Amino acid sequence: MQLLQSLCQIAAPSGHEAPLTEYLLHYVRQQQQQWRTRPTVLTGGEFQDCIILVFGKPRTAVFAHLDSIGFTVRYGRQLVRIGGPVVKTGYQLVGEDSLGKIDCTLVVHEETGALSYEYHREIERGTDLTFRCDFRETDSTVQSCYLDNRLGIWNALRLCETLEDGIVAFSCWEEHGGGSVAYLAKYIYDTYGVRQALISDITWVTEGVQPGQGVAISLRDSLIPRRSYVERIRRIAEASGVPFQLEVEGSGGSDAKELQHGAQPWDWCFVGAPEDNVHTPDEVVDKRDIDSMLALYRVLMREL
Amino acid sequence: MQLLQSLCQIAAPSGHEAPLTEYLLHYVRQQQQQWRTRPTVLTGGEFQDCIILVFGKPRTAVFAHLDSIGFTVRYGRQLVRIGGPVVKTGYQLVGEDSLGKIDCTLVVHEETGALSYEYHREIERGTDLTFRCDFRETDSTVQSCYLDNRLGIWNALRLCETLEDGIVAFSCWEEHGGGSVAYLAKYIYDTYGVRQALISDITWVTEGVQPGQGVAISLRDSLIPRRSYVERIRRIAEASGVPFQLEVEGSGGSDAKELQHGAQPWDWCFVGAPEDNVHTPDEVVDKRDIDSMLALYRVLMREL
Amino acid sequence: MQLLQSLCQIAAPSGHEAPLTEYLLHYVRQQQQQWRTRPTVLTGGEFQDCIILVFGKPRTAVFAHLDSIGFTVRYGRQLVRIGGPVVKTGYQLVGEDSLGKIDCTLVVHEETGALSYEYHREIERGTDLTFRCDFRETDSTVQSCYLDNRLGIWNALRLCETLEDGIVAFSCWEEHGGGSVAYLAKYIYDTYGVRQALISDITWVTEGVQPGQGVAISLRDSLIPRRSYVERIRRIAEASGVPFQLEVEGSGGSDAKELQHGAQPWDWCFVGAPEDNVHTPDEVVDKRDIDSMLALYRVLMREL
Repeated sequence: MQLLQSLCQIAAPSGHEAPLTEYLLHYVRQQQQQWRTRPTVLTGGEFQDCIILVFGKPRTAVFAHLDSIGFTVRYGRQLVRIGGPVVKTGYQLVGEDSLGKIDCTLVVHEETGALSYEYHREIERGTDLTFRCDFRETDSTVQSCYLDNRLGIWNALRLCETLEDGIVAFSCWEEHGGGSVAYLAKYIYDTYGVRQALISDITWVTEGVQPGQGVAISLRDSLIPRRSYVERIRRIAEASGVPFQLEVEGSGGSDAKELQHGAQPWDWCFVGAPEDNVHTPDEVVDKRDIDSMLALYRVLMREL
Repeated sequence: MQLLQSLCQIAAPSGHEAPLTEYLLHYVRQQQQQWRTRPTVLTGGEFQDCIILVFGKPRTAVFAHLDSIGFTVRYGRQLVRIGGPVVKTGYQLVGEDSLGKIDCTLVVHEETGALSYEYHREIERGTDLTFRCDFRETDSTVQSCYLDNRLGIWNALRLCETLEDGIVAFSCWEEHGGGSVAYLAKYIYDTYGVRQALISDITWVTEGVQPGQGVAISLRDSLIPRRSYVERIRRIAEASGVPFQLEVEGSGGSDAKELQHGAQPWDWCFVGAPEDNVHTPDEVVDKRDIDSMLALYRVLMREL
Repeated sequence: MQLLQSLCQIAAPSGHEAPLTEYLLHYVRQQQQQWRTRPTVLTGGEFQDCIILVFGKPRTAVFAHLDSIGFTVRYGRQLVRIGGPVVKTGYQLVGEDSLGKIDCTLVVHEETGALSYEYHREIERGTDLTFRCDFRETDSTVQSCYLDNRLGIWNALRLCETLEDGIVAFSCWEEHGGGSVAYLAKYIYDTYGVRQALISDITWVTEGVQPGQGVAISLRDSLIPRRSYVERIRRIAEASGVPFQLEVEGSGGSDAKELQHGAQPWDWCFVGAPEDNVHTPDEVVDKRDIDSMLALYRVLMREL
């Protein structure tokens, strides 16, 4: 879980993913010698801060978003949200402006819900703040801010070790309305003809999806994927013997929104471990669900 | 109205349109010998569950959505909506899971509004349910669930009988956020240069649009089409002698949303009969408005 | 300010931009002899009512929206909104239907908030109404309806006088959900490889952005642009000596929404003067902010 811990500690809120992009490019350069297949690496320029790894003859693409939720400093001591963080007075926030590193405390106004920070000085307008990472590991769980989606990235990177044919795409802005999957999806479809997708992201523990019961295959969230594709995935999962759970939600979204609404005919399915304490500094995931997530991705990328 | 009744009886909620796609492909294969022009039929593969029929040298495309509203079984006896169905305790719902055919009853919790079903057994997670079809016909009306949009499909199929130049596109996911018109529109524009659209769909009876007064030409709904295109349609309609009504709404949408927001410069106009009891099992349309809808489409596809 | 006054007086609500398009095409034909560089003018046909001006070898595109907010006549004396106008009983509205020119008064129902008009006759269904223009100029300010975005257009036109390399694009439907920037952005990217954008539009006076303190560079609104691009703009602005203010908002949007969500990797930044009394007939802007807006655009288009 060393890699996961490193990923969780890098600040990369929506729009400011570049530090994590750099880390991943460095990681890929170092690790790819030990991977079964060496990928083509696409990044920079027309890919902005995204990365596409192309292995062999791809039939399916995995999407994992780089960005996290957070806050932007507005005027005075006001904060505005990046994505949808849970807010609670006392959460520790970190960042950096031209005066140096920042370690401050979130304050939620009791009546208005207005967001501000407590700190010994004013922070510069436009500065990004993210949750301070307190990475905790037990025999059965990992806990940290930003398991959503550093665990989805971790899963994608571990998948790379044995992947023979497939695409792994690291996207931006997922937590804040999207903005990169539209062009990634177009590029991948136009260049490789690939239009099958798996969304490597983290979902919610609910009454129907419990920790430790296996990775969740989502039959729907706020959007509804094409039934025939989801059924194929379900049958492959059943045959594989990997533990999994079926999720059915009426809300929530992912990078799949941009696949669904783009001008290419993508089939997509969200496949990810469930977490509790979603969008707080204390997101927690059962290690068995991490194992089954990676195991199922290995099977799906072979058989789809 | 035999054809319309058959269309209304096929379950095809958003994401699960395939059974209706199969029915239409079979219908087209059988009927096209009697049509004035034999269309090119595009379906499957990169068109997912959509169908495009291309007649002659097209200048205008008709879009009719295949999917309907409905419900997905969540956990326990919970239901979540597909699109925006009206809900009322007692509505009969049908579906099928691995244990067999289902015929159950919708229950709306009086205080919370939570949706569930009454049935002698639990239904499998992720199962789609749709309204049970009770098709009713009088001298002056037809009544059923899913006239929205099986009547729009019926109109498009009847239009095919005499169509010489034009495109008829059957789309998916319209009731649940869209997801196919973006790529259909791109394909049609890139391949045929067509960028004029008519939306063959059903609208609402209101104080300004009354049953029996003719097909509605919508000047706007939640979106505003380009004025110059709508004015052309209005002038053709006036010259045709076909009864019609002008609609002006501030809400509501259709497949036109994806045309408006896509990366091709489509002109579009919603032209459809009004119905009462929208999104219930008892949608009702005046036969005179069905007649004028088809009559106006025949004129428009010739003259636009 | 003669040009600005003329621009403010032309009715061009979303969907009905054509009269302003005509005016601009005429203006460009007349003025371009005196411009440093003669642009290629793209309009009509596949560009609908938009205009693209291409100067030299473009690296950056300026987007300015043509359309304004307003109202559509519904049934009886009801009105529905075009975009998000502020409403107040007594606002004067103008328009035209087949019976002639209209000059009527907005009425907001005290309890329901329902919108209607007072006039000596009923206005035809579907007629557009806009605020009556009362253009006021002092030594330090201009005041009128529709400074948003006729001032953004004015800025773009004045920029054209000295522009050597760049694109100026006039868009439609910005106030009402968008609908043209998706295809403009695709065309510009595919044809010229340009993917840097500046949004020439008007923002809000707030506690952090004050009149007279210079043009606003927006670090974010409801969307978050890529940090590295915004930082480049900020550094160029600092080096230029042109007065500017940094804006940070959690809401609001612009033509950038379509750039962010489209299938090309655009970098974008909103750069515009702040106004008070937003979306009323009394929008007011400080002349110093107009000056610094134009001055900064001249610098940015050279240096980006």
